Amino acid sequence: MVQTWLIPRPAPCLTRPFAAGPSLEQTKPVIPLEPRPRSRFLRRSLLFAKYTSYLALSATAGLVALGAAIFIHDAFTYTDKHVERVPVSPIALHPERGGPKKLPVVDVLLADEEDEEFRKLNEKPKLVIVGGGWGAVSVLQNLSLGDYHVTVVTAETFTTFTPLLPSAAVGTVQVRSLVEPMRKIIARLRGQMICGKATDLVMSQRLLEVETVGPDGNVQKIYVPYDKLIIAVGSVSSTHGVPGLEHCFQLKTISDAQTIRRRIMDNFETATLPTTTPDERKRLLSFVVCGGGPTGVETAAEIYDFCQEDIMNYFPKLCREEVSIHVIQSREHILNTYSDAISKYAEEKFRRDKVDLVTSARVHSVHHDHVVYTLRSPDGTVIEQEIPTNFVLWSTGIAMNPFTKRVSDLLPNQVHKKAIEVDAHLRVKGAPLGEVYAIGDCATIETSLVSHLLELVDEADKDKNGEIDFDEFDFMVSRIKQRIPMAESHLQKVRTLFDLYDSDADNSLTLNELCKLLEEIGNKITALPATAQVASQQGRYLGRKLNKLASQHEVLEANSVKDLDEAVSGPFRYKHLGSLAYIGNAAVFDLGPLSVMGGLIAMYAWRSVYWSEQVSARTRALLMIDWIIRGVWGRDLSRL
Amino acid sequence: MVQTWLIPRPAPCLTRPFAAGPSLEQTKPVIPLEPRPRSRFLRRSLLFAKYTSYLALSATAGLVALGAAIFIHDAFTYTDKHVERVPVSPIALHPERGGPKKLPVVDVLLADEEDEEFRKLNEKPKLVIVGGGWGAVSVLQNLSLGDYHVTVVTAETFTTFTPLLPSAAVGTVQVRSLVEPMRKIIARLRGQMICGKATDLVMSQRLLEVETVGPDGNVQKIYVPYDKLIIAVGSVSSTHGVPGLEHCFQLKTISDAQTIRRRIMDNFETATLPTTTPDERKRLLSFVVCGGGPTGVETAAEIYDFCQEDIMNYFPKLCREEVSIHVIQSREHILNTYSDAISKYAEEKFRRDKVDLVTSARVHSVHHDHVVYTLRSPDGTVIEQEIPTNFVLWSTGIAMNPFTKRVSDLLPNQVHKKAIEVDAHLRVKGAPLGEVYAIGDCATIETSLVSHLLELVDEADKDKNGEIDFDEFDFMVSRIKQRIPMAESHLQKVRTLFDLYDSDADNSLTLNELCKLLEEIGNKITALPATAQVASQQGRYLGRKLNKLASQHEVLEANSVKDLDEAVSGPFRYKHLGSLAYIGNAAVFDLGPLSVMGGLIAMYAWRSVYWSEQVSARTRALLMIDWIIRGVWGRDLSRL
Repeated sequence: MVQTWLIPRPAPCLTRPFAAGPSLEQTKPVIPLEPRPRSRFLRRSLLFAKYTSYLALSATAGLVALGAAIFIHDAFTYTDKHVERVPVSPIALHPERGGPKKLPVVDVLLADEEDEEFRKLNEKPKLVIVGGGWGAVSVLQNLSLGDYHVTVVTAETFTTFTPLLPSAAVGTVQVRSLVEPMRKIIARLRGQMICGKATDLVMSQRLLEVETVGPDGNVQKIYVPYDKLIIAVGSVSSTHGVPGLEHCFQLKTISDAQTIRRRIMDNFETATLPTTTPDERKRLLSFVVCGGGPTGVETAAEIYDFCQEDIMNYFPKLCREEVSIHVIQSREHILNTYSDAISKYAEEKFRRDKVDLVTSARVHSVHHDHVVYTLRSPDGTVIEQEIPTNFVLWSTGIAMNPFTKRVSDLLPNQVHKKAIEVDAHLRVKGAPLGEVYAIGDCATIETSLVSHLLELVDEADKDKNGEIDFDEFDFMVSRIKQRIPMAESHLQKVRTLFDLYDSDADNSLTLNELCKLLEEIGNKITALPATAQVASQQGRYLGRKLNKLASQHEVLEANSVKDLDEAVSGPFRYKHLGSLAYIGNAAVFDLGPLSVMGGLIAMYAWRSVYWSEQVSARTRALLMIDWIIRGVWGRDLSRL
Repeated sequence: MVQTWLIPRPAPCLTRPFAAGPSLEQTKPVIPLEPRPRSRFLRRSLLFAKYTSYLALSATAGLVALGAAIFIHDAFTYTDKHVERVPVSPIALHPERGGPKKLPVVDVLLADEEDEEFRKLNEKPKLVIVGGGWGAVSVLQNLSLGDYHVTVVTAETFTTFTPLLPSAAVGTVQVRSLVEPMRKIIARLRGQMICGKATDLVMSQRLLEVETVGPDGNVQKIYVPYDKLIIAVGSVSSTHGVPGLEHCFQLKTISDAQTIRRRIMDNFETATLPTTTPDERKRLLSFVVCGGGPTGVETAAEIYDFCQEDIMNYFPKLCREEVSIHVIQSREHILNTYSDAISKYAEEKFRRDKVDLVTSARVHSVHHDHVVYTLRSPDGTVIEQEIPTNFVLWSTGIAMNPFTKRVSDLLPNQVHKKAIEVDAHLRVKGAPLGEVYAIGDCATIETSLVSHLLELVDEADKDKNGEIDFDEFDFMVSRIKQRIPMAESHLQKVRTLFDLYDSDADNSLTLNELCKLLEEIGNKITALPATAQVASQQGRYLGRKLNKLASQHEVLEANSVKDLDEAVSGPFRYKHLGSLAYIGNAAVFDLGPLSVMGGLIAMYAWRSVYWSEQVSARTRALLMIDWIIRGVWGRDLSRL
């Protein structure tokens, strides 16, 4: 039936009068009509109406066909499978105790003997990945099936598309659309998951200590053995020593977004009560964002959108009038890591929207009902200001979480304060070579060249005279570039550099001169930012390397290669693809040399980028639906 | 561009060879080909392929057109409205205190002076609706704009589509798809909302005491004045005096569904840990449902579905093997309010699915790790049995919530234990006439006839001889039917009834005889069940009556009619449209004389019914999307 009207009709009907009347008439003998003069406009209108109706019918038929197809598929997903007598190892049911703390060592997991494929994986090296964010997922997506026995240890059972958390915080998209279950991601690799939090590491015995919830609801600890460990646990927010951060929201997880959403809705509900005094109403509807980076800016923009598009329509108008949004930024401009043009554009947009930008200000303290910040006035005196509020978002800087801190403390050569230092191959510095990797926010690639001084001299000083002449230096620079690609841009002009530090101009560098050179160059290198893009690229790099290690393992071992990582792949190189941010019905893109910014069209571009970066087709569909639903019916105002 | 291929092509292309080759050839002189014999099958296949591709193209174009339309619409929802100097009454900002407890009386609300329309409504009678469930929403949907100043007092800011809560509890549908913000529902009536919990009632001063959350986060109490009050606050679960119900889940609200979902996921996650002993694993994966009514049965079915369709694929198979689902029912059969055929069908289905049905059993006590129930063995001795479990759902019977209890206690003639008694016009018995109504689960329509004895005799006893002859009795019966329609079916045979109770056969009933008659008939009337269907019909009845009251108010008052409700409409009559239940890839329908049951097709019918009952097009779309998403990608396994 659906097809009928799609069959191309003979052309004549195009020239016949359009409104041919009921079909009954067609059986009567047709009396030829005088050709009526018909205006071109009318004819065109009729044609237009005709094609429009065709189009509408096509659309409907398309949807019906799609719906039918989906429901037929749907019907087949109702299975009647039964399982009985699943093979399971006795050790998986009663793990033995071991390790320094005599905790249960989960050597064999529940599914390990389940079928042939699992049994095969059992003989492969155990790859344990701690974390479930961008880095971990990227590794998982790049690993090939069959090379490793993969176990993911993660406290949350899902991975989150973090860049859209500000959208989820006001309900532009649903939180469910930002998450993908880890179990679905690891299913491809026939990996397994342990829902728990890593707390400690026994590197000598290759055991990861994990805190899980036992059957009685109490915390219990276990050891997860590994051959290779990838730490990708992310970071926590840095406090910058500001007191009162317990009154702040953060926006790093799904539950953060949910709490923020509830608070925003609560504030509006309480503000509508006549018993709320005008001052309290102002305070309830004052939203303070500390930090003018992308997260802070996007959250401020989303709150603004929410007020304009939804609060305006369903709450007393007075509530909309009393809303104030404040962004407190320590630098001179918001989005200071972006180009100047973008900063200015965003500031201009916010000013038009009456979002209060407080720049060059430091948050002094946060209290349950107000925020105190300090401004340096032109004459140098410090002024203290106060914003009454019931909502403070803290989105500035990162710090180590307890596990990262513990790993860092275990290794004497780890001195970085915000993350675990890794070498250019992403191996944790100081850990047994090729056993422990760290990626993403919890890791930072070493930028210190001077710590490699002796090694570098040893390699480069061909004539072993304890000094480095220009040829030797040239070789040394190539080695540095190989080892620490991030130093590359600072090692362009080899001759100039050599001459600059060769203070006695004897055409050779002493160890002292070399030491100074390496130290000063090291200081110039900027660490990679703690962004999803970096974590994702690191994950891909590591996943691919692990594949190569697995496939070339035997050959390399036969040749007794010492540094396997170096043998199979070069060091990690970050390729910056640009940054973007949503600033409320407008978006900005910093693509290196190019800065793009604009209104609705840019916003759609911004959505497209995030849309294409989704982990799964499912979240992609959900996200698209969310945007459509928001477009048609606005945001959901329910406080769940 | 989209239109191009939709223009009907001339017929010839149907007879030309289908694969005509690249268009380039068409510019060359065409050499006539010998007509090749072509099999009918091939021709048909080509035609089929052609129409299929037309169809696919239509579908795609339809979707593209739809998408484009939505995005264009979407673009226009980004508004740039600004509000300033919204008119607001000083009393709305600083309400005066009053009433017996000297609480703030919110006489004027924030939006009341906002614009002309609001100011007009301000002069209308104040209609206050307490609650946000089926009853309240149904009233709101049937009221017409402009007759009342509507205020909704509700603790939750949304209304919930309760029949699908079992689906939401395992993630077949998302909780967000079951809720519609109250503010969007009342927007049509330009009503206002107070987010709070009713706690008390001062009927003499027409004040409703409401507990709200103040700006400091503490509870504060206010009085909401009303001219007409509708109580539609629903019910809580009945405990039946069973100890340990604090260990049970309920399934009455969205947050219940969320908690249940989290617990189910937690149980599975802990069950996958090797440190969980086999006994503990069995306990974690044992799901107990107390109550074999629709909610209990549907929850059991949904848990079964979830295990079969999702757990099976993403958790160790051992977990699936160890799952056990138990339904404990006090009656002999599950779904005992449905027809026998349906009960049997459902039981058969559950038996095939290895769901453990424990019938004729009483739950004795619930503990944190097990449930104890008692069975009466054939020889009459009581046997105590135990099921170890970490999940108990309690879904049996209803009881009054604290506010309903308070209202009931305020009125001396309220004696019902489970709900507020109302007359056939849904007016709370004992409250000032026409001021307080109650509908839904929190209300029960009086079934006692004997309490009307004197009134009825007064009306019917025309000759005032203190006895009722047959003619008088006939009139009395018609009055009873008018007043208490639920008695109708028991008053069919007037003569037989009269003769039966006219024990001395003097062709007249004494007061004593009449009293006995009315009492016995009253006992035969069954109260309406506490279902969404009843609440919804009551809401519609009340909404329409309120409309009539508003429009006929002046005329009625001019004629000094005493009982306005009776003057504008008859008593409430419930029309049972049938019951339905989902039992796991199958559904059952009890349509009075007809019982329908079946597999997938019945399930789709079940979905259609619920789909059509949605409050808004938004939730309808969301629900459809959920079902499609579940069909394509399965349920979400994330524990949010």
